[in-house]
Amino acid sequence: MLLGPGPSDVPASVLGALGKPTIGHLDPRFLTLLDETRAMLRSLFGTRNELTMPMSGTGSAGMETCVVNAVEPGDRVLVGVHGVFGQRLVEVARRAGAEVVAAECPWGRALDVQALRKAAQGRPFKLVCVVHAETSTGALTPLAPFRELADELGALLLVDSVTSLGGLPVEVDEVGIDLVYSGTQKCLSCPPGLSPISLSSRAHEALLARKHAVQSWYLDLSLVSRYWGGERLYHHTAPINMLYGLHEALRLCLEEGLDARFQRHAQNSKALAAGLEALGLELLVPAPERLPPLTLVRIPEGVDDARTRRQLLEQYGIEIGGGLGAFKGNAWRIGLMGASSTRRHVLLCLSALADVLRQQGHRLASDPLEAAQAAYC
Amino acid sequence: MLLGPGPSDVPASVLGALGKPTIGHLDPRFLTLLDETRAMLRSLFGTRNELTMPMSGTGSAGMETCVVNAVEPGDRVLVGVHGVFGQRLVEVARRAGAEVVAAECPWGRALDVQALRKAAQGRPFKLVCVVHAETSTGALTPLAPFRELADELGALLLVDSVTSLGGLPVEVDEVGIDLVYSGTQKCLSCPPGLSPISLSSRAHEALLARKHAVQSWYLDLSLVSRYWGGERLYHHTAPINMLYGLHEALRLCLEEGLDARFQRHAQNSKALAAGLEALGLELLVPAPERLPPLTLVRIPEGVDDARTRRQLLEQYGIEIGGGLGAFKGNAWRIGLMGASSTRRHVLLCLSALADVLRQQGHRLASDPLEAAQAAYC
Repeated sequence: MLLGPGPSDVPASVLGALGKPTIGHLDPRFLTLLDETRAMLRSLFGTRNELTMPMSGTGSAGMETCVVNAVEPGDRVLVGVHGVFGQRLVEVARRAGAEVVAAECPWGRALDVQALRKAAQGRPFKLVCVVHAETSTGALTPLAPFRELADELGALLLVDSVTSLGGLPVEVDEVGIDLVYSGTQKCLSCPPGLSPISLSSRAHEALLARKHAVQSWYLDLSLVSRYWGGERLYHHTAPINMLYGLHEALRLCLEEGLDARFQRHAQNSKALAAGLEALGLELLVPAPERLPPLTLVRIPEGVDDARTRRQLLEQYGIEIGGGLGAFKGNAWRIGLMGASSTRRHVLLCLSALADVLRQQGHRLASDPLEAAQAAYC
Repeated sequence: MLLGPGPSDVPASVLGALGKPTIGHLDPRFLTLLDETRAMLRSLFGTRNELTMPMSGTGSAGMETCVVNAVEPGDRVLVGVHGVFGQRLVEVARRAGAEVVAAECPWGRALDVQALRKAAQGRPFKLVCVVHAETSTGALTPLAPFRELADELGALLLVDSVTSLGGLPVEVDEVGIDLVYSGTQKCLSCPPGLSPISLSSRAHEALLARKHAVQSWYLDLSLVSRYWGGERLYHHTAPINMLYGLHEALRLCLEEGLDARFQRHAQNSKALAAGLEALGLELLVPAPERLPPLTLVRIPEGVDDARTRRQLLEQYGIEIGGGLGAFKGNAWRIGLMGASSTRRHVLLCLSALADVLRQQGHRLASDPLEAAQAAYC
């Protein structure tokens, strides 16, 4: 049972798709699968963007794709930093030659648009970067205020949706996101290895108007898009079997229905939170700012981080995640993503955690299963 | 039957491995699989290099990895260009800020070390780049003379082994290659999606002594190696199921034995060449410079490129490749790579090609099956 910050449990039909015979990356049957994959990704992202496709790398490759295609040397980039993935955006943008302004915000809370506005000091920017769902802290940031800010600064809006796509609404067109990337191993419940991205027509135009070549040949969307578009021009050999898997994972998302899927993620997250509090554990993110697919919980006094996670894995076959960055060693990250977001996962996780914590002398506040069950009613 | 320039046919046990349940990228069982994968890759590359691992992208990502980790802005880079992949190296090195000297050599022949020496004009270089097996032309270049040249120029030697690794000897330590990359979908017969690389201790030291950060965060080996090494520091989520597949593909290579595998590739290639000549077709690369895993054949007068390939695919389920670059529209690329390099593949390909060519009025020179069978004796 994969209950960490990703990968999540992969459905049998996705595993089955991964293991189907490899065919050529220019085979007409494969090209049909690519077109269907793009159409389904547009539904997931809530967009009609032409430039919507999975990049041939993990979520971090998607981040780098969006940054290096948008940024030219010397461009000013504003990044909201409230966790590891904001920090990573700063680093990636610097390496792309940007002049980066990092607006530091408290970890474990939503990003504060005023902090970014203040850091911008009214100067024009090329890009405003926001992590929608911070996988290192479990905080969710509403996006609309950042679109307003980007408009004030004359900037494109870049959004990290690695841990939100497929688990909660991303709404690229409605919000007005210009560049967005995600990963496959979170709420889409496909193994890691691909990074879905989407660019607005405005971002696409900015790409075509660049003065300098994109520094990465592998991630240059002006080239990559010529394979994914009608031309089918060879750029690199597409990761064929991974794309079989993504196609099936997206099909499952749409078969369930996005609203039902988002509802499921919200409900299971609420039940988990109730159960964790009954265990006497402190949740690190205030309820209104919590990310349904990922819950941060403080490791209680007297309880050993590594021992607990090892026991969960060895005795129960359950993986939860350790803390990252400022939360390393003092928090756990419990993911309820995609196929791992079910009542069964919630109740088994709480039972196992109760047992392992009791073994270390931790005293439960009340019955975690009862609390979780009540939250479902 | 995949008989193009890659992907090649993927064995059932590799497909089975791809479809195994996803576990966490920090799960101890997965980390063991990573260590075994690295050890097997070292055997394939003929090296003891510590920095040997698969990058999380396709072969082109491996190319970019080697270039951007070796090159700093302003470094002088010498590239032998005798096909599309040499051209790509020029482009990637330019985008990394290098001053590139491209030594153009005839397509369809081995690279000429004297042409590179002449282009270098005795100046010092940071990097000499050589494509061992040009996938766009089917030419094989012996590497030892380029090591000598690199020594003369004070340069590191970078080698593209995308279409050679697992099909013919690469011998990283014996030749003295400093940076090498490959792909999984050629002679390793794993689906595309990963790029095995290896760096010598000299290249590793140069990396550690860099003045500028590597321009790509995703491909920065000083970071990536901290996950693959003992630290297991999180960088990006490894493409777990693809790594299951590579592990099994490498196991099959070593189970067969590398010498037997190289011998098999050489023998089937010879038989294919004999059969193609019996069909009355002209091979584009002189026999001593031919790449066993990939054969370039000129499209005869009066025969339609696209129609022939479509008929092979639709009527026989056989994929061969079209030409690339200078050979686009006037040559086919027939791959006999990994699991696609068998007597059965050779004879069925020749039979199907004979039929499809006859349908277009092409007159065979003699019996292709008889010629191929004779080559096996």
